[in-house]
Amino acid sequence: MASFSSLASFTIRCSSIREHHHDPHKQNPSSIKINGTSSSLSTKNGAVGIKVAPEAENGHVKTQQIRQNIPTTKQSVDPFRQGLIIEGGVGYRQTVVIRSYEVGADKTATIESILNLLQETALNHVWMSGLLGDGFGATHGMMRNNLIWVVSRMQVEVDHYPIWGEVIEIDTWVGASGKNGMQRDWLVRSHATGLVFARATSTWVMMNQQTRRLSKMPEEVRAEISPWFIEKQAIQEELSEKIEKLDDKAKYVNSNLKPKRSDLDMNHHVNNVKYVRWMLETIPDQFFENHQLSSMILEYRRECGSSDIVQALCEPHEDGFLKDGDQQDHNNISLLNGFSMASGILEGNGLLKCFEEKPFRYTHLLQVNGEAKNEEIIRGRTSWKRKMSTMPFSS
Amino acid sequence: MASFSSLASFTIRCSSIREHHHDPHKQNPSSIKINGTSSSLSTKNGAVGIKVAPEAENGHVKTQQIRQNIPTTKQSVDPFRQGLIIEGGVGYRQTVVIRSYEVGADKTATIESILNLLQETALNHVWMSGLLGDGFGATHGMMRNNLIWVVSRMQVEVDHYPIWGEVIEIDTWVGASGKNGMQRDWLVRSHATGLVFARATSTWVMMNQQTRRLSKMPEEVRAEISPWFIEKQAIQEELSEKIEKLDDKAKYVNSNLKPKRSDLDMNHHVNNVKYVRWMLETIPDQFFENHQLSSMILEYRRECGSSDIVQALCEPHEDGFLKDGDQQDHNNISLLNGFSMASGILEGNGLLKCFEEKPFRYTHLLQVNGEAKNEEIIRGRTSWKRKMSTMPFSS
Repeated sequence: MASFSSLASFTIRCSSIREHHHDPHKQNPSSIKINGTSSSLSTKNGAVGIKVAPEAENGHVKTQQIRQNIPTTKQSVDPFRQGLIIEGGVGYRQTVVIRSYEVGADKTATIESILNLLQETALNHVWMSGLLGDGFGATHGMMRNNLIWVVSRMQVEVDHYPIWGEVIEIDTWVGASGKNGMQRDWLVRSHATGLVFARATSTWVMMNQQTRRLSKMPEEVRAEISPWFIEKQAIQEELSEKIEKLDDKAKYVNSNLKPKRSDLDMNHHVNNVKYVRWMLETIPDQFFENHQLSSMILEYRRECGSSDIVQALCEPHEDGFLKDGDQQDHNNISLLNGFSMASGILEGNGLLKCFEEKPFRYTHLLQVNGEAKNEEIIRGRTSWKRKMSTMPFSS
Repeated sequence: MASFSSLASFTIRCSSIREHHHDPHKQNPSSIKINGTSSSLSTKNGAVGIKVAPEAENGHVKTQQIRQNIPTTKQSVDPFRQGLIIEGGVGYRQTVVIRSYEVGADKTATIESILNLLQETALNHVWMSGLLGDGFGATHGMMRNNLIWVVSRMQVEVDHYPIWGEVIEIDTWVGASGKNGMQRDWLVRSHATGLVFARATSTWVMMNQQTRRLSKMPEEVRAEISPWFIEKQAIQEELSEKIEKLDDKAKYVNSNLKPKRSDLDMNHHVNNVKYVRWMLETIPDQFFENHQLSSMILEYRRECGSSDIVQALCEPHEDGFLKDGDQQDHNNISLLNGFSMASGILEGNGLLKCFEEKPFRYTHLLQVNGEAKNEEIIRGRTSWKRKMSTMPFSS
């Protein structure tokens, strides 16, 4: 019997761990003694009661499934990933320490690292649900229907970047998006103080793996995943403005970008983080050194394969926000876009300094240079604020 | 009082946890109940008894140190990183789950991910020791002397690549290397079976951060780190053959490689993993698809900065091993270089198949194209074996 009190203000009752998988090859039984109280933690293979999927028929697949430990029933706690089920049994929380290689030259986590951790916690959520088939987050029902998940929209807001060694908690949960889609949200907080560092939301639809066409959600898949849906939004919905399509007149253009072997994910597509890296590399070094990304919206248009040659376009924002010589409406607009209220207040007298900066927003486009025409991969919008470390911290 | 039984065959006595740092802003006191036994785990800030270094004088530095939790005294266990002190109090072990973004298209951990995890566990070892100053693994004594660590040699042997979701244990420890150097070794094992997946060893020397010249080890630094030294080698020492210097006649050459912002580490140097990526990208796709790296030796010659333009050279091995039409001495050489014995036996009848492949070894060079002459960054040697998944697994 295992229970795991939630770290948040609500208490979660977890289902009992019914089975411990015993591996005859175990060499190192472990026990942990903390603060004088001994707990027998069955940390070899079976800590979360893994049942290996019965469809594992041949030796190779079976070996892989044992090594991957993918459960076929819902789990409450994953001691290895430091994850647990929250939100009355449907959400997932994972505690993570920012690693040395996840930070940039300024010792704060890079946006790429944060996106990686969002992907990781999403997949671990599906792992915990007992619904994970083979593949990239697809459920058993999706696999029977040859369906994979594709992301159509992603929005991330970062108020504070965690630093090297900092302990953070990432919550994630899912909800319905229209009739055939799914929304996945995340909340990233300081483990020590509970302060919200970042929020994110994303929209997912299903695609037939063979035809590469979008698909309705089959009833058997709806039956699998809809019990996990809750109505809760990490980012307040607003009328999101259209991201205009850039053309060759864009101010910054990086052409002839080629995916490398190491940029491909398990689906042999260019991974999401590489897209963002290409987008951000169009922004001039000087701006990048003094600013950090505070929010990002990505609209996905088509897949990018390993043989595509990609072009990244980028344009400073032009709609009157912080244009040269235009100092009006700063209080409203900057707080809505370039800042969160909390970080604006935190930064004290640095706030005014920010208004001198330009530009704080960029529009982005990644496209494949085709023979007949260019095809859009992603449209994006990024908002930026001055880095804390370049501002007076306390005075 | 905390103790943590080692997962290996020896039992470790850990020093007591003397102090718990209480944060008045704590919102979420936590307790963990596992298998019916309750342990009060103070997991907010103070779980490992953090004392913030007294030299933190101004607000910014102090805030950063609280967030980073760098201890000033030796710790025995780090529940967040799942790390503990082993080897009679001087080694470090961390349990890690291979994450979704750490694997390549074949779902096995990439060599880059493994190198990242070696770096991470090394730094966490220093973190646990209470010796970590600000910076990239430098001790307090090193910081007082303006010294940083630089790696001069790295050798990695990988018998089995862990797969997505697999739980591994990484042990690391240090020893003396000559009079002024330090050796750091690693052992990577399957958490479930104890099977050794990988071994690594590295040699480090000290460099003056201002003059960029190598330095003798000051007595105060020796006093700090030598109590941690043990004599134990992850890789049996052998007479390592010289890695010859390649020139422009090398078979594969990638020129004009430019470090990107995201390739720089905290020291504003190109990070180690980027070097390896550049090296491996010179190897043709077709070979890469069917083979995996089984061992790698890197000899570091000089630093590479953000403005250097790099050239990567690569040459298939030419010393009689698996050259076209030359089939002699395979049993000796391939088992020593391309294979480990264990994996060779595991792969059964696939073993013979490997001998048909060519070439299994490459020599590498990364250099900066200078005006007067080219300057070496790294010489390297990589050995390869056929991928398990492309071989008959059981028959």
